[in-house]
Amino acid sequence: MGDLSHLKRGKAVMVDVSRKQETSRIAKSIAVVYTGKINLQKELSQEAQRELSTTVRIAAIQAAKKTSELIPLCHPLDLENIECSVEFKEHLIWIECFAKTSGKTGVEMEAMVGCSIGALTVYDMIKSKCPEALIQHISLRYKEGGKSGVWKNDLKVTLL
Amino acid sequence: MGDLSHLKRGKAVMVDVSRKQETSRIAKSIAVVYTGKINLQKELSQEAQRELSTTVRIAAIQAAKKTSELIPLCHPLDLENIECSVEFKEHLIWIECFAKTSGKTGVEMEAMVGCSIGALTVYDMIKSKCPEALIQHISLRYKEGGKSGVWKNDLKVTLL
Amino acid sequence: MGDLSHLKRGKAVMVDVSRKQETSRIAKSIAVVYTGKINLQKELSQEAQRELSTTVRIAAIQAAKKTSELIPLCHPLDLENIECSVEFKEHLIWIECFAKTSGKTGVEMEAMVGCSIGALTVYDMIKSKCPEALIQHISLRYKEGGKSGVWKNDLKVTLL
Amino acid sequence: MGDLSHLKRGKAVMVDVSRKQETSRIAKSIAVVYTGKINLQKELSQEAQRELSTTVRIAAIQAAKKTSELIPLCHPLDLENIECSVEFKEHLIWIECFAKTSGKTGVEMEAMVGCSIGALTVYDMIKSKCPEALIQHISLRYKEGGKSGVWKNDLKVTLL
Amino acid sequence: MGDLSHLKRGKAVMVDVSRKQETSRIAKSIAVVYTGKINLQKELSQEAQRELSTTVRIAAIQAAKKTSELIPLCHPLDLENIECSVEFKEHLIWIECFAKTSGKTGVEMEAMVGCSIGALTVYDMIKSKCPEALIQHISLRYKEGGKSGVWKNDLKVTLL
Amino acid sequence: MGDLSHLKRGKAVMVDVSRKQETSRIAKSIAVVYTGKINLQKELSQEAQRELSTTVRIAAIQAAKKTSELIPLCHPLDLENIECSVEFKEHLIWIECFAKTSGKTGVEMEAMVGCSIGALTVYDMIKSKCPEALIQHISLRYKEGGKSGVWKNDLKVTLL
Repeated sequence: MGDLSHLKRGKAVMVDVSRKQETSRIAKSIAVVYTGKINLQKELSQEAQRELSTTVRIAAIQAAKKTSELIPLCHPLDLENIECSVEFKEHLIWIECFAKTSGKTGVEMEAMVGCSIGALTVYDMIKSKCPEALIQHISLRYKEGGKSGVWKNDLKVTLL
Repeated sequence: MGDLSHLKRGKAVMVDVSRKQETSRIAKSIAVVYTGKINLQKELSQEAQRELSTTVRIAAIQAAKKTSELIPLCHPLDLENIECSVEFKEHLIWIECFAKTSGKTGVEMEAMVGCSIGALTVYDMIKSKCPEALIQHISLRYKEGGKSGVWKNDLKVTLL
Repeated sequence: MGDLSHLKRGKAVMVDVSRKQETSRIAKSIAVVYTGKINLQKELSQEAQRELSTTVRIAAIQAAKKTSELIPLCHPLDLENIECSVEFKEHLIWIECFAKTSGKTGVEMEAMVGCSIGALTVYDMIKSKCPEALIQHISLRYKEGGKSGVWKNDLKVTLL
Repeated sequence: MGDLSHLKRGKAVMVDVSRKQETSRIAKSIAVVYTGKINLQKELSQEAQRELSTTVRIAAIQAAKKTSELIPLCHPLDLENIECSVEFKEHLIWIECFAKTSGKTGVEMEAMVGCSIGALTVYDMIKSKCPEALIQHISLRYKEGGKSGVWKNDLKVTLL
Repeated sequence: MGDLSHLKRGKAVMVDVSRKQETSRIAKSIAVVYTGKINLQKELSQEAQRELSTTVRIAAIQAAKKTSELIPLCHPLDLENIECSVEFKEHLIWIECFAKTSGKTGVEMEAMVGCSIGALTVYDMIKSKCPEALIQHISLRYKEGGKSGVWKNDLKVTLL
Repeated sequence: MGDLSHLKRGKAVMVDVSRKQETSRIAKSIAVVYTGKINLQKELSQEAQRELSTTVRIAAIQAAKKTSELIPLCHPLDLENIECSVEFKEHLIWIECFAKTSGKTGVEMEAMVGCSIGALTVYDMIKSKCPEALIQHISLRYKEGGKSGVWKNDLKVTLL
């Protein structure tokens, strides 16, 4: 295996993106919360599901904008769009986050941070009822733009 | 199922903690990153593993302090300690985060945010080699303090 | 008129609160947005009003927690609760924000910042349709706690 | 009325600005604080007015840079300039804030946040003497750039 | 030499302050900027010196509140007061910063961060005229509170 | 002496950079910590020096990204790279910070903030052993880009 791009002579570094091309860049990620014994899709009213979803979406959008504050080696960048969706599926809650920019570096981490903080916001809101809820999966699903072009995650999301 | 503590007449709310008791509070959480085809414990030098670990631990500590900025309904609180550890186990990286306070509300979310951002920092640093790496598990393992006393997560961490 | 507490020998200063008593403190404020020619209560569906309200409430809560970052001479403090409500009344939107702490200094500015950022979030969301909308009123209505005890704003909210 | 640009199928969303043109963009806003019974222009020394003004201007500039952290659906953007001015006029204090960028989206909210936090900083500094002071008006006065070109607010600032 | 309190078995850690006593704590620090060939006390008008000073003081206060965001192993804490003063002395500018809290850990870093960011703000404002200006000294001068009681820096501030 | 670029008619202002050219911009700065009586290069194990260095480098990178939040009149800008190095030389620790962007304004302050917060992080970590340690020097060494082209600091770093 060659070196990690974030280690240079053994030291954690940012990647110098000054010579990368400014292109349109997109990334999509998902997070899945398992709510434990409780089926929230059944137990929560539509209105409650809606309120929880909106709170999660706003949290995800706000967090995605903070990515470079949270992930030490990320570059600050101007985002053109962040979208988040939340879906209740019986004992699971699926959160999808999409990020877009025109810049010299990708928005994978923005999408990943968005859906992770979304999932943690779900956990915060349900933990009084479901303390053993857990985040079962967070992964990057798709990215586009830059030298490497389109990348799709071939691994299926396998849940326990 | 009764109402979620974070929904009051259908609206997302903070919990009023003014009447809760100020006690010592502790929480511990874990996150597990699956690094895909690559066995990083084998492929990365000790020095590189160490550098990555330190970066992750600092990121986790910094993020835990930002919990109330990230999770909309969390209370800001003064933390007495945050600890994070990182362990390479073949195709997995285990991150543990521990938070402590004396206050009127628990530090579950601080521990959860710390280990989640730690896991995302791992992903950021390895994604050029392992883009299909994923976060396979994030959960609260233990908490102590407040009315509910000691709570342990009985669910074993089952990984795929 | 005596000196402003925030000016000491002509210089802008924080107030030294070290000798103030730690008491329970509450503050309540309001902001009123005038939406211009458009009656949003009539024009927006219930669902849209609800979505806008949740977004505003989350923005207000998040902003109240950032008060000491925004207002240079404010003290950082741990908040026990922040509540925000949003009401559509024909061409007006009323935002109320309530803050609570146990500390050595009041939470007036937390309530004021919360409802102001709530009102600005309304403006942001409606400005494509109502660019001439305006914030017509922001004031503190009530505070309690500390040496000065209960204070109520006697001025009626007079709108144009 | 058509849909709000910030609601898409009933959900609060950021606007995708990826296809908007990068142009020079300007916005100007005002806020007016009514100081209640006290005429601060008369009661405060020139030196005190100056100190208060500088504090307010710095607070406004700092806050304008935080707009995308505060307003959930705003895009982060690089600002080319922010200017703020403060004027004492008997029982009123006028705050004007101007923002400029070259980008794909406007700076209305930056100007609005700047003058609002400026007005709140005034309130914070005078509230020990004038707790019933209030913010009487915040509005966008002018914007330029982008598809919609120049826009002026035709509504006169009417104060009570 | 024994171990550094911030290294535990070779790892950078926060210090667990849960068993420390809550006492009143004070710290004072200074920073000295050398302005190079230019004597700013002579060259700048009183008004300009005043404006620069106020800007620096506000920057120092705001930065001191951000200490735990900036210094990875610092604890977040509620500050009771921060004071900053700025003095022009021919080719030098002296910045003093004072911090106070009641808590389980000291405010040395708050005072140090405050005067450092103050000094950097000076540099930012004068660098077009004096790019070779430099910060010649930053040190803690005094602290009080906690187990170690009063500590004074015995080293005189020696400048080149 | 002409006016400071950050004072306009006596008022602290941002510089309007809208007409400046977007060019590649670089800046490099250093900070030197004097550790007092203790020779940390000798006293600390290689492993401890390494851990301290990594913590400092991460702190410097994170702080450089926060420059426009900390220095009131700085513009927010997208950074292409930040690098930091730490060197133990007997009783001194040298910190170097390098910043790079493509933009309308320079990255001097980003480099200066990075190495300053790096130096403060050193102080935080060693202050239990060396409270009288001090920051002896912070200066800009080099910048490139924009109208003024290449600038080198001709002043040698003279330490006491």
